[in-house]
This record gives sequence, structure tokens and C-alpha cells, in this order.
Amino acid sequence: MSRNFTSDNITPVSAEILAAINSANADSVPSYGGDPYTRRLADAASGVFETEVAIYPVTTGTAANALALSQFTQGFSAIYCYEAAHIVTDECGAPEFFTGGAKLIGLPAGDGRIGAAQITAAAAFAREMGVHHVKPAVISITQSTEWGTVYDLGHIEQIAAAGKAESLPLHMDGARFANALVHLKCTPAEMTWKRGVDVLSLGATKNGAMCAEAVVFFNPKMAADFERRRKRAGHLLSKLRFVSAQLLAYFDDDLWLRNAARANAAAEHLAEGLRTIPAARLLHPVDANEIFVSMPETLLVALEAEGFGFYRWPLCVPERDVAIRLVTSFETRLSDVDEFLAACRRLA
Amino acid sequence: MSRNFTSDNITPVSAEILAAINSANADSVPSYGGDPYTRRLADAASGVFETEVAIYPVTTGTAANALALSQFTQGFSAIYCYEAAHIVTDECGAPEFFTGGAKLIGLPAGDGRIGAAQITAAAAFAREMGVHHVKPAVISITQSTEWGTVYDLGHIEQIAAAGKAESLPLHMDGARFANALVHLKCTPAEMTWKRGVDVLSLGATKNGAMCAEAVVFFNPKMAADFERRRKRAGHLLSKLRFVSAQLLAYFDDDLWLRNAARANAAAEHLAEGLRTIPAARLLHPVDANEIFVSMPETLLVALEAEGFGFYRWPLCVPERDVAIRLVTSFETRLSDVDEFLAACRRLA
Amino acid sequence: MSRNFTSDNITPVSAEILAAINSANADSVPSYGGDPYTRRLADAASGVFETEVAIYPVTTGTAANALALSQFTQGFSAIYCYEAAHIVTDECGAPEFFTGGAKLIGLPAGDGRIGAAQITAAAAFAREMGVHHVKPAVISITQSTEWGTVYDLGHIEQIAAAGKAESLPLHMDGARFANALVHLKCTPAEMTWKRGVDVLSLGATKNGAMCAEAVVFFNPKMAADFERRRKRAGHLLSKLRFVSAQLLAYFDDDLWLRNAARANAAAEHLAEGLRTIPAARLLHPVDANEIFVSMPETLLVALEAEGFGFYRWPLCVPERDVAIRLVTSFETRLSDVDEFLAACRRLA
Amino acid sequence: MSRNFTSDNITPVSAEILAAINSANADSVPSYGGDPYTRRLADAASGVFETEVAIYPVTTGTAANALALSQFTQGFSAIYCYEAAHIVTDECGAPEFFTGGAKLIGLPAGDGRIGAAQITAAAAFAREMGVHHVKPAVISITQSTEWGTVYDLGHIEQIAAAGKAESLPLHMDGARFANALVHLKCTPAEMTWKRGVDVLSLGATKNGAMCAEAVVFFNPKMAADFERRRKRAGHLLSKLRFVSAQLLAYFDDDLWLRNAARANAAAEHLAEGLRTIPAARLLHPVDANEIFVSMPETLLVALEAEGFGFYRWPLCVPERDVAIRLVTSFETRLSDVDEFLAACRRLA
Repeated sequence: MSRNFTSDNITPVSAEILAAINSANADSVPSYGGDPYTRRLADAASGVFETEVAIYPVTTGTAANALALSQFTQGFSAIYCYEAAHIVTDECGAPEFFTGGAKLIGLPAGDGRIGAAQITAAAAFAREMGVHHVKPAVISITQSTEWGTVYDLGHIEQIAAAGKAESLPLHMDGARFANALVHLKCTPAEMTWKRGVDVLSLGATKNGAMCAEAVVFFNPKMAADFERRRKRAGHLLSKLRFVSAQLLAYFDDDLWLRNAARANAAAEHLAEGLRTIPAARLLHPVDANEIFVSMPETLLVALEAEGFGFYRWPLCVPERDVAIRLVTSFETRLSDVDEFLAACRRLA
Repeated sequence: MSRNFTSDNITPVSAEILAAINSANADSVPSYGGDPYTRRLADAASGVFETEVAIYPVTTGTAANALALSQFTQGFSAIYCYEAAHIVTDECGAPEFFTGGAKLIGLPAGDGRIGAAQITAAAAFAREMGVHHVKPAVISITQSTEWGTVYDLGHIEQIAAAGKAESLPLHMDGARFANALVHLKCTPAEMTWKRGVDVLSLGATKNGAMCAEAVVFFNPKMAADFERRRKRAGHLLSKLRFVSAQLLAYFDDDLWLRNAARANAAAEHLAEGLRTIPAARLLHPVDANEIFVSMPETLLVALEAEGFGFYRWPLCVPERDVAIRLVTSFETRLSDVDEFLAACRRLA
Repeated sequence: MSRNFTSDNITPVSAEILAAINSANADSVPSYGGDPYTRRLADAASGVFETEVAIYPVTTGTAANALALSQFTQGFSAIYCYEAAHIVTDECGAPEFFTGGAKLIGLPAGDGRIGAAQITAAAAFAREMGVHHVKPAVISITQSTEWGTVYDLGHIEQIAAAGKAESLPLHMDGARFANALVHLKCTPAEMTWKRGVDVLSLGATKNGAMCAEAVVFFNPKMAADFERRRKRAGHLLSKLRFVSAQLLAYFDDDLWLRNAARANAAAEHLAEGLRTIPAARLLHPVDANEIFVSMPETLLVALEAEGFGFYRWPLCVPERDVAIRLVTSFETRLSDVDEFLAACRRLA
Repeated sequence: MSRNFTSDNITPVSAEILAAINSANADSVPSYGGDPYTRRLADAASGVFETEVAIYPVTTGTAANALALSQFTQGFSAIYCYEAAHIVTDECGAPEFFTGGAKLIGLPAGDGRIGAAQITAAAAFAREMGVHHVKPAVISITQSTEWGTVYDLGHIEQIAAAGKAESLPLHMDGARFANALVHLKCTPAEMTWKRGVDVLSLGATKNGAMCAEAVVFFNPKMAADFERRRKRAGHLLSKLRFVSAQLLAYFDDDLWLRNAARANAAAEHLAEGLRTIPAARLLHPVDANEIFVSMPETLLVALEAEGFGFYRWPLCVPERDVAIRLVTSFETRLSDVDEFLAACRRLA
């Protein structure tokens, strides 16, 4: 990373995960998930989540999200989510594609966290509209959110309860799931099925894996025919062992939590520093490993000239100020952060 | 109609149109649009619009809209429109279905009329997002709008120009096209291709037809393969002559304008009356044949008890007040309106 | 018709049906199927089929077929049918569109009638292939078939039983349902649910209606959310009463059977005549109102020169001979047939 | 491998490719294909194919095929291919999914190789059917074929020419592309664009890679918007460098050809041996690394009891005999083959 805060997917792979890939290469094993790594992963995931889960490894978060949502929807369905959720703005229509045209109904939300009352209101609106409107089918929340905030456990529970009252299952986009876990200091079970989450897109790629995400159903009965969904989307790898092995290493010895803790700590350090810099204004609470901050364009240009990397963030909510996003990762050292802060102070 | 203001699609068929259906029944004619009525319609429509058009009759407005939009989109496309447009909230996902999952990006708008600057901003956002975001493909506006207002000609021209600058064609949902024409006192050409509209969903059913809508391309070259789209959607009728005959009668002797003028006049009369009733608050300008008005619930109940019909309008923009929609049609007599107004005054 | 044997959808509308349309025009009635005609139709259809059915009127057979099949399929589904079924070759991909890409698996069949053993074998193949293959979901048969033959009741029962053994419901494409009924001299119930048919596309347009087809579920519980499918496909007409009224008249006083009997009688008369003409060779048994016959090209040209109409039939099974299709209808007079036969004899 | 001939996707990863993955892990690099590996791959592929190509790495062959086909089709399109092609029977409907419901029209073919005349006939049939039939859009052939045979160069040229005459581009499913190259002793250019192939699904996973396939367009202009197709299907990996690095190593120092040559040699050795065993009957010529052979069930059981692995092949063409498939790979030693042959002789 050093000076590059553009994203957490620019990083290499954690040494432990790369080692696991290498050692999975020993032998011939059955393809398409019939291998021992994939079987062990099912057990490991059930252990991690303290309940029997059905877990389906895939190679991208977009695939995980779109496949998970398609399990609960038909073409005439409504998916309720935050109006600037990753599934709305960053997946090039994958959810619509995989669901056969279900409608993502985006709800406004401060800091990226939608509220239970919005679900209730949206479902009531759908009921009034009847057959002319799409039918409420599923809720999706992102944890950590798109703005680097984290839903607390009570909040998740409220959304799940509002959904259950309307027979709507709850999907969690966990592209940065481990960062939220670390922030909340809770167990994976507490942040998911114990609060009413039905299906999870579990991300690992941004937190040290090479290409490993997974769809996790907390009630395996909800996964009927999911295998065929994955296959017909081209997301069933023949040599699936190499993805499963990544996830085994990811869970092993809490690698995922250790990696996320490093990323979160760097982000917190960065946020603390930025709060002391008058030219910088933090736009959201910093709960995980993403920081959204506005700065004068002149300062941004000067930082870039010194080799610092970050994204100017395109805002779909136009009235907000210009902003940049800074992302930390398991690779970010506190000294990298200090360098950035020092440059900010010097150049401001 | 009498006391029933719920919608303009509860009406019978205009006598002229029913007569046309009856006289189209004389003989055997080729099926699937090879009949003389459909051929004559192509000529008639080109005359009405003062340019050679390609016209495709269908039986519902939802089909017309979804088919028209599908002609300009792919699954990874963005369709820009008003956030509470009929295509967004009232067609049960038909546009997503017909387009293979294109995303309707809803823009906020007072009185249902989006602005050219919103198109420019949305396209710029898409450009910044790159491959992760859907690709801008087409704009859709509704004329008359969902709130009974009408875009003036300059407004249409500005939106079309903003679209053309981004290579986006312009679709007009003309479910109540004739009502807008009558309001603007302009020609069909002036309200469409002369202002940059590329494709029109022309509605007739709400204005006196039985089941007759049409997709009209102002540049027939843009209609390549459209026939197959209509066919595979099940919208190519074998005895298409009976739809074409409706549209011929609709244009003939300006029936469409005469019908719309009656509906608009009744709406204007109703709006004028409501303005004098303190308990009623008009929510939007009344340009066409729909009136949105808020009234006390007690008054609404009393009106219903006297047999008046209207819709309590479910509002997807939750902060607005409770409202009802009143719709007039070619069948509405001014005396019907007067009865309603008198009841309002008496019961308020 | 007179000399035109190209199709049964070139005909006008039966007088009784046109009269019903006219008398349905009296008043304002609720739209989108909330009208009394549509309610009466539900009762009438349940009477006709001797069981409570759920009936959904639409305006084309392609819509009826594609909607019906979509109710039982997902994108990863297999639909088993005859390899040259109308849904395979004549609907421009509508079934694939409505089902989100389900695969029509065409089975070879003499005279257009598939066999129960083929279903069993195809399901066994799918089972062996597992997740890599589409999942068996539904069977579709056409009655009368695409070649003018009719499945007898025992045959339907066998196919249904083979399907039930694999949990596959049975769809019947009844574009020419009444012609088969008349041929078999059985009741609608006997030809459908009593033999295991779950859903029927009931055609009326080719047999005297203007634009009236219907999807009929023999177990209304199987129709969950079907309303939304129809709506989002643009096939829910606002003034639905005019379609329902056609179907009411169609059933009334056995109009449908009387019309089909006339068409079948004309076809039988034609087939009998052709059997006596050496130059003509009947390609299939003539059970309903379609006749496939091969003749020398010189004779065909001569017949056309005298104004007779028919289709040279494109055969997707290339090894078969050149052929024409002759279709009779409720409008065909026996004298029309005699004229055609006389011309054949004279010109051969 | 040793005694396991079930498939070529059960193998580990070639040492050279695993090494390349490891060395790609050094640094932070831009994500989503902005990395230097992916850029170098574009150059390398253009060198390999002796023309400027556009190459898009993905992780499965199903994704490569379905994405490639979707580039040339619409929902109302026809794709012509062999009736038992992998895209028809083994991809769970992925082509239909990605194309929005295009129809795969399967053509019968001895040894899996369709003929140019079949394309011409199918296109003529479509023309006769007009708007009622799907529109011819693209041809797909598999090289090596599903039965382990290889199209010779003249054959490819004829199919391409028949396609070009109907404006149909030609797709090649090259899951076992290198095996065909080695068999024909020709260059990649000679087997593709020089013979009229427009787009290639290039497989590497079965021939030594971990999860690396690619869509290769020989005319980069044909790849417009393909990036978005890949993204919205969830097939744009964030850490794409690790797939690109595999393909770089695959091409480097002719690894792909060396691996394929080993697999082909083992297959040839196996075929030669089987020809001398009376109980075995080869079902197709053995051009590449797949062998289809019929044997008595008793012999198969005995072989399995000794630990040999192979697939009993489900045949979708039911009249053929029971068969097994034996697959060799870059890992298969000739001694493995000899062991198998000895067992056959001993147990027969």
C-alpha cells in the first residue's frame, strides 16, 4: 500500500492464503466442488457461524450479491435497499440481470443505513398499488456500509423484524463483513442469523484473499436449486478447491479478524488525524476501513503530486460536497497513515 | 361516468371507434398486420405526424412503453425518467422485463417534470463510475405527466438536447398524449420529433378506444427488428386489423382531439370549482384530465357515501399529504362535475 | 374464406362474439378485470370445465403459452415438448423470454404427438447430468397438434403420468382446443384435468373470437402471482371486459363447439376429396381443421393462379417433402371445399 | 491422475502457472484489470494470434461461452450449434441466461462436427418463417469437439463462409483449443481468424491453469461494451492480475502446447491400445484428449473395482450404446495408460 489509499482490492494476497492455495495443488481431486477442501469449508463455516450453514464459494462479490438476491426474487419482485448501495450503483445491473429484472427500490439513508420504518412504509405502498407494482421480496443491507459505517446489532434486528412482518427475508452484503465484526466486537452469529439475517454475501477478497467470496445461507433449506443458479451464471469453478482453500485459510486462526483489525486500526488512526486538520472534513463516522472526507481541490492535487493515491468520489446524491475516499487494508501500516497526515498538514 | 372519477379507463368505447371495429369485420384479410387496415394506419399516422413514421399497434400502454424502451437498451443500460413515473411504479417491472434488466434511474421532479440538467448530471455520474455502473441509454418522459401536468415545448426541446449531447434518444410515454396536445394547442409533430422525441407510446385506450395503443418511431430506421420484439412479447395480434381500425377511427375527423378536449374541459371546470372550496387543496397545476387534490378524510368518506368515486392516491414520496386523484374523460359531462362540486361544498 | 385456406386467423369474428363486444360497451365498469364480465367468465369457465378454475384472459396465444409456462419454470428449467411445436418454432422465442431463458427441449414425434417414454428418458438424462444440465420443470403438448392430429385421452393420461412421476406439471397449448374436443367427442374436463393437464392455453381467436385467449389453471392454487406475470408482460388490459365478453359469448350456447364442428367437417370433407386425387398425398391424419398435403409444384402454381390461397409450409425437419397447409374455419363452406377439389382435379 | 481418467479438470495446476500466481503477489496494483499483468496479456495474446485481439480473462468456460455469445445476440436470436454441444447440454442454460433468452438451435452431427450446409438450410428456414421465428444471429462450434474430434481447417472455413453469407459471425468454444492446435499442427491464427472465426472462448483450466479462460475477439471493434457484460455477470475480478498472470504463463515458452501435446499423446496411446482390445469399441475418432469407448458393463465394474476412474456417459441421443469417457491430461503418464490397458486385457 504505502501511499496508495484507493481501495482494499489493490492489495496482494495474505501470505497464509497464498500458502493454502499452494498446498491445495498436491493432487487430483474431484471437480466442481466435489473436493475435500469444499467439504471442509462447509464444516468450517458452520463452525464459524455456530449453526449449520450452506456455503457456496464464488469469485466476486457482485456474483455473490446477485446470486443471493436471485434466490429470493422473481422478475416481478422488489428488492429494498439503500439508494446508493453497491448493488444499485456499482454492479452494472448485475442484480437486475440475475433476478430476471427485479426492481431495486433505493431508500434514502444518512450514512448509508436504512431504517426499519422505511421497509414498512415501502411494503405498505406496494400493497396499496397491488398488481401494478412490483411485489416486495427481499431486503438488502450492506455491512459495513458503503460509507464506512456499521449497523449496530439492534438496528439489524429492527430491519429484520420489519421484513419478517412482511415475509421479506434479509440479505447482508458483507463485502467488508469482517471489518464490521471487528468494530462491533461480536460474533459472526450475533451479527447475522441471531439478528434475523437469512443470507450473507461474505467477502474475503478485500481482506486478504485472491478471489474468494461466498454466499452463506443460514437456513440450508433456503438454498434449494442454488447450485444451478451458480452453474448457469458461470460461477461454478471446475477447480473449486482453490477458492475453498482460500476461505479455509481465511477463517483459520482468525486470519480474517486479524486482517480486518489491522485495516480498521489504520482507518481509525487516519480519522483521528484528519479530525485535527482544519482543511479536512469527515463526511461520515469511521466505523470500518473506509474514510470519506472533503478537502480543498488544491490540497488534493498537492497530495497526488507527492504520490498519494485516493479516489475522488462520484456522488450520486448531487447536493453533497466534493469528497475523496481513503481505504485502508490489512497491509496498511500506521506509518503510511502518518506520512499521509503529515503531508496533509504540510500542504494544507 | 356520472359520479365515477376513478380513472379514464373505466369508460366505454367511443361510438366512432366501436363502429370502426364493426365495419372491419366484413371479410377475410391477411393476419399479423398484413391487412389493409394496418397498412392504411401507417399512412394515416405519417399524415398525422407530418413525417414518415413506423407505427406498431399493441393493446396496452405497458406493452408500448416496455417495447419502445427495449429497442434502445441492453441489459446493462440506464433509462432516465421521473422517479414516480408510470414505468417505475405502475407497470410491475415491465420495462425491466422487456429490456432484460435495464435500470430505471428515477429523478426527483416537482409536478412530475424532470429537467435537462438532471440528465446531464446523471450521465456525468455514469461516466465517472465507468464499467461498474449501468450505461446511459435512453430518456423517458411522460406527456401528460403522472401528476396531470404538461411539459411545454421548450422544456421537451431542452431535455432532448441534453440527451442528444450524450447520445441518448428520447422516449415519450403518451398514455394521455392527446390531452397534452389539446392543452398546448400544438400539432403532434411540434410536440414530438420537431422537439427531439424519437419514439412515442401513443395511447388511445384512455381516450375512447377499446384496446389500442401504438409505438411510433419518428425515424423508421430506428425500428429495426422491432417486429420481432413485439412478436416474442406476445403482442403481435393475429387479427391485428381490429386494433388498427380503432386507431384509424381515433385519428379520423380529429376524434382523438375532440375526446381529449372534452376531458380537459371537464378537468378545468373541476379544478376551478375546487379552488373555491377551502377544504380542498390542489396539489399540482391542472393541465390535462387528472386532478390531484387533498381533502379531509371526513369529507372523502362523505363523498363516497353519496356514490362519488375516486382513488385515494398512494404516494411513493411519503412526506406529501394524503391525496385523491380525480380523472375526467371524454364521457364526463360538466353537470357531473357540478354535482361533485356541489356535494363538496355541502359536505365540507 | 371462400378460396382462402391459408389460416383460421384470417377470418372475421363470429356474429355472436361481435354482438357481445357491442353490448359490453354500455357503461363505465372497473378496469383491469374488476368488471362484471370478467367475474362472470370465472364462473362460466368453472362450469364449462366442471371444476373451479382460475382463468386469465389475454389477447394472443403466444402470450397465453409463454405466461403459462413461466408459471412453472425458472431460468434454469427444462420444458419438454415436440421438437417442432408452435412454442419452439413460431413464437420468436417468447417462452424463453417469459421464463427468463428456460430451455425448450424438443422431442421428435411422428404426427406431432410426443410419447410418455420420451419424457421419462429425458428426465433420466437430466438426472444423470446433474447441476450441469437444466432442471426438468414442465411438459407442454399441443391439442390439436401442429400437424392437425389429436392426442387421444389415453395418450394424454400417459404423458401426464410420466410427468407426475417426475413432478412435472402438464401444459396444453389449446390454440385449437375446440377442434380437438369436437374430434374426440368428449367434455373439456375429460380432455384436461381428468387426464392430468394442469394448465391450458385456451384459444378462441382462431375459432371465431377477435382477440381472446386465456390461461386456465385447473388448480387455482397453482396460479399464485400469475396476475403479476400478466401485468408485467403488458397483457393485463385496462378494458378487460371486452376480452372477457368474447369468451363468455364463446362458451355461450356452445358457440365454440358449433364453430369447431363446422371447421372440422370442412377439413374432413377436404381430406376425403384429396384422398381421391392421385397428385395429392396427405402427410398426416386429419383429425381437426388443418390439412398437410404434398402436391406437385406445377399444380400449386395453377391453383394459386385461380385464386386459391394456402401456405407452402417451411419444414424444420428437412428430409420431408415440400408440402402445403390448408386450414378450414367456422367460415368455410363445403362448397368452398368442393371448388378447391374440383380445381385440383381439373388442374392436376 | 494415475488411475483417474474422469476429466482433465481434476488435475492440479501446472508448476509454471502456480509460480506465476505466486510472483504476481508482490505489490499493490490497480484492480479490475488496470494492472500490468492484464496489459501484458493483451500484448501477449495479440502476439500469439498474430493480430491485434481484445482479450477478456474470466474464470470459467461457461462464462466465456455465454458472454461471447451474448455479444452477438438479442433475446429474439437464434444460435446455431451442434445438438449435443457443451453449450446446449452442460451449461445449465447459461447461454440462454446471458443472451436474454436466445434460442440454441441444435443441429445433428456425426462425431460432433456440424456442416456448412446445415447452417444454410437453417437460415433459409428462418427466412421462410419470418417474424414468427427467432432471427439467425451467430454460429458456435467446439474445437476440439465434445466427442474428442477436431474440425480440420477447411471445414472451419466452410462453416464460416456459410455463416458470412447470412451475416452470422462464428464463435469457437475452445475449452480444449490447445489440444486441437497440437492435433492440426497449425498456428492459433490459422485455426481461428484466418478461417473466419470471430470470437474464441479460450480454455486454459483443463490444460494446466487454476481458473483461467478468456474471451478473445479477433476484431476488437466487435467487443464494444463487452466490459460491461463481463462486469454485470459478476465476472470482472477485482484482483484480475491473478487470472491474467495464469494466461501469461500459459502462453509463455509454449506451455499450453507442451501440456496439450502430453495429453494428446497419452490419448493416442490409449486409443491405440483400445483398438487391440476386442471388448472395447471406440465410438469416435480420437483427435484430442477425450476417448469415447463402449465396453461391457461387467468389464467397467471390474475396472472400477481396481480403482480406475471414468464417466459412464449420459447420451442425449438415446439410440447410441452405453459408453464411457476417458480423458487424459498434461499429467497423464504413458505408464498410467499402460496400466489401464493391461487391466482391460486382464479383466475382459
